[in-house]
Amino acid sequence: MLKLKHIPVKSFGENIAYIHRDCSFYKVDDVNKVTKLEIHKGGRTIYAFLQIIAEEGVLALDEIGLNDDAFKSLDMSEGTEVHVGLAAPSLSTSALRKKISGEILTSGEYAAIINDIAAGRYSKMDIAAFLVACSSSMSSTELVSFTEALVAKKILHWDEKNMVVDHHCLGGVPGNKTDLIVLAITAAYGLPIAKSCIHSLTSCSGVADTMGVMAEVNLNAAKFQKLVRANNGAIVNYEAMEETKVNHLLHDVRSQLGINQNELVMASILAMMISTGVSHLVLDIPVGPHARIHSTNEAIRIRKQVEYIGDMLGLSIDVVTTDGSEPIGNGIGAVLEARDVMKILRNKEDAPADLREKSLFLAGRVLEFDAQLRGGQGYAVAKEILESGRAFEAFQKIVNAQGAKEVPSVGAYVREVVAPYDGVVKTINNDIISKIGIYSGATQCLGSGVDLQKKSGDRVHAGEVLYTIYSCNSADFDVVSQLVEHDSGYQIEAD
Amino acid sequence: MLKLKHIPVKSFGENIAYIHRDCSFYKVDDVNKVTKLEIHKGGRTIYAFLQIIAEEGVLALDEIGLNDDAFKSLDMSEGTEVHVGLAAPSLSTSALRKKISGEILTSGEYAAIINDIAAGRYSKMDIAAFLVACSSSMSSTELVSFTEALVAKKILHWDEKNMVVDHHCLGGVPGNKTDLIVLAITAAYGLPIAKSCIHSLTSCSGVADTMGVMAEVNLNAAKFQKLVRANNGAIVNYEAMEETKVNHLLHDVRSQLGINQNELVMASILAMMISTGVSHLVLDIPVGPHARIHSTNEAIRIRKQVEYIGDMLGLSIDVVTTDGSEPIGNGIGAVLEARDVMKILRNKEDAPADLREKSLFLAGRVLEFDAQLRGGQGYAVAKEILESGRAFEAFQKIVNAQGAKEVPSVGAYVREVVAPYDGVVKTINNDIISKIGIYSGATQCLGSGVDLQKKSGDRVHAGEVLYTIYSCNSADFDVVSQLVEHDSGYQIEAD
Repeated sequence: MLKLKHIPVKSFGENIAYIHRDCSFYKVDDVNKVTKLEIHKGGRTIYAFLQIIAEEGVLALDEIGLNDDAFKSLDMSEGTEVHVGLAAPSLSTSALRKKISGEILTSGEYAAIINDIAAGRYSKMDIAAFLVACSSSMSSTELVSFTEALVAKKILHWDEKNMVVDHHCLGGVPGNKTDLIVLAITAAYGLPIAKSCIHSLTSCSGVADTMGVMAEVNLNAAKFQKLVRANNGAIVNYEAMEETKVNHLLHDVRSQLGINQNELVMASILAMMISTGVSHLVLDIPVGPHARIHSTNEAIRIRKQVEYIGDMLGLSIDVVTTDGSEPIGNGIGAVLEARDVMKILRNKEDAPADLREKSLFLAGRVLEFDAQLRGGQGYAVAKEILESGRAFEAFQKIVNAQGAKEVPSVGAYVREVVAPYDGVVKTINNDIISKIGIYSGATQCLGSGVDLQKKSGDRVHAGEVLYTIYSCNSADFDVVSQLVEHDSGYQIEAD
Repeated sequence: MLKLKHIPVKSFGENIAYIHRDCSFYKVDDVNKVTKLEIHKGGRTIYAFLQIIAEEGVLALDEIGLNDDAFKSLDMSEGTEVHVGLAAPSLSTSALRKKISGEILTSGEYAAIINDIAAGRYSKMDIAAFLVACSSSMSSTELVSFTEALVAKKILHWDEKNMVVDHHCLGGVPGNKTDLIVLAITAAYGLPIAKSCIHSLTSCSGVADTMGVMAEVNLNAAKFQKLVRANNGAIVNYEAMEETKVNHLLHDVRSQLGINQNELVMASILAMMISTGVSHLVLDIPVGPHARIHSTNEAIRIRKQVEYIGDMLGLSIDVVTTDGSEPIGNGIGAVLEARDVMKILRNKEDAPADLREKSLFLAGRVLEFDAQLRGGQGYAVAKEILESGRAFEAFQKIVNAQGAKEVPSVGAYVREVVAPYDGVVKTINNDIISKIGIYSGATQCLGSGVDLQKKSGDRVHAGEVLYTIYSCNSADFDVVSQLVEHDSGYQIEAD
């Protein structure tokens, strides 16, 4: 039994337990590698990784220190006497090793692994091993098992006989924030749209980031459902709901390592849809040489897998493939993307045409889930809703209901990237633009990002601005400035 | 610029940097995931993962705290003003992502990854991702690149025109400590044997652990070489040599995750041999249903790969396959294995016959590297050396030269596992015995382990002891006691 003490250290998702070097509990000399402790009292158990403190005055010999994460998840007051022991071998360890060896796991084994992750038994290293192993091979049946394990239990139930719709993109195209426009049009039309989204994973800005600059997206499940019912639409940061802790942990590791295999992306999107009770989904697969999916053949393979999972788990999915050859919209980064979205909803003349067109197309497909609507009429209806200002009104209602925020300004560190000679923009490389956006600081600071002034086919003169980079601090600005010297991402055909 | 402070926290291989919540350097609100810092001064750079401290009195606002690992590797005194910035994107990040996606990497990319690991740029999570990705696919050419990257530069050069030999086992068989007997016989014969070994990775006791209970194995490169020259043999804990930091980091992660794919095992063994200047190697591949290699076909595939790497990197390798169907010797765990080895070297009657025979066979193969020795005579010569006591003398000389230690006693917590009924031992399952050994505490405490009293083919009576488990502390003992209830690892055919 050791006495609990809170050591206020933020370590970003890992539970750490500290004991003093001379603590009676454990002979420190024996500790030569990462050791997992089980800390429990009265039926409540957490797991934490042991670190040894030799600093005087921080911990007494009969105390166990817990960092922020661990202290919060044990949820007991300082001084409480808790039982501390070595964590017993985890049930899923052998399943994890099997997967690392390339074997096929059963649905029970996926469930065991996901359960252990939920219980905090996995370090980030363990989770990385699991995700990389899954990335290298997962059968369609395994994909169903994995998705099902991620869902675990549904967070939201909709008693309505009506459908609940959503739209999601497989990603890989910078700036592509059709989501908010589709949300607005669908809500204005009157189909309930329960939009889940997440923070950026490997891109500059996730939908949760972009919407997050305009309104509160960290809602709990009950509030989210209430708002969808009230306004025919709401948008939630999926991982803000406490039921989604596992997704959060997986997401963290994937984001840090850039693990983005299609199987994992599919499983996580579909699990998100199913657990929030969505019945009908439009899934957008952008195809392009520098999009996530490089060829139509690959898109078809993904479509089949997605449809299979949907059929097995009871989700109706309409898969559409779109042009993902270059960034969509002008802004890349939360604040800049929010600006684009608002220009479109307000029917401004300088609104980016590509983002507007794509949004109308996708919204049309969503609306066509409505049996009342004649096939092929979705686009026209969506366009009418947007042009009439009803989409804007619906969006304002959603924003206000969720708590409108003042949009921050763009970063103060500005760099313009110009055309080196006269010519025509031939291609814009998604990967490089995305990388420039990330190193501008867009994943950490909402106001950082890239604002494209030229698109493919545009004529440019030597010295004319191709795009502007915004950073919020000098550290990021220095890094991105170096990076952009190397390759601007634009290929310009000289006259 | 922040002032350096040592925060004496042991975190087992990861550099941690602490800043105060209100530190001017970084707006903590922006930090939402693991952030890698670059800390440098005067050409010296280390990388560390950021954690935020809110505890008062630990860090001032203008200080940066470094944990034990980081402080030691920066090697500057407290109060030194150091530059702190975000780590610039690592050169090898894209290579790592490619490998995670299952692509084939060039030798330059392997070198970049290994360099970055050596520089401390990889977290354990990153290393795990790399190793699991390598486990899932690595071509023979990649295997050569990986091995070459691990060698980086040779630690030892032998000016002698003579060969320098070693013997290594691919592992997977509990108790199999032929290494020390082969060492003794080879040294007594007069062939210089530069024996490198490591601590246990996934087994109960590595050769470094077993030898470590009798003599000092943590030598530096110069001392190791001097001792090999003086006594025709010495044994070093490879990872104790400071030149092998990368291996140490990889080893740690592999050991914690149990990543043990053949490709990784081969690369690490061969890199160890090449970097220590070994010219001739006998590689033992035990084959058995519960060994690492399950079939002769698999062993042949491994042999071809090993021979290919050897040919490419200039190491002469004699691959032998041996019976790995059950544990070799009686003791499993460092102290118990050391006892077996000494019984054999002392020609005791109760010495385990299987371990003795196997050692003679392998020593014979090593001796036959000597061009003077007639083919097929190795075994007989080895046997003569062992029986004459010359092997024992050579071993004593080696032990004394390295600094003899008093062997600890076995653990005080004892449990006998008995036969449930009369019969004959049919099989002993390596995996289960190994697991029992590990949970007895053998990987943490030298005196823990399993002592087998019966082997396959032995008659047993109900209640007769099959094996004895020793643990050094009650925590381990409780865990192993539960485990052994479930499956003893012995299959007994009733009369």
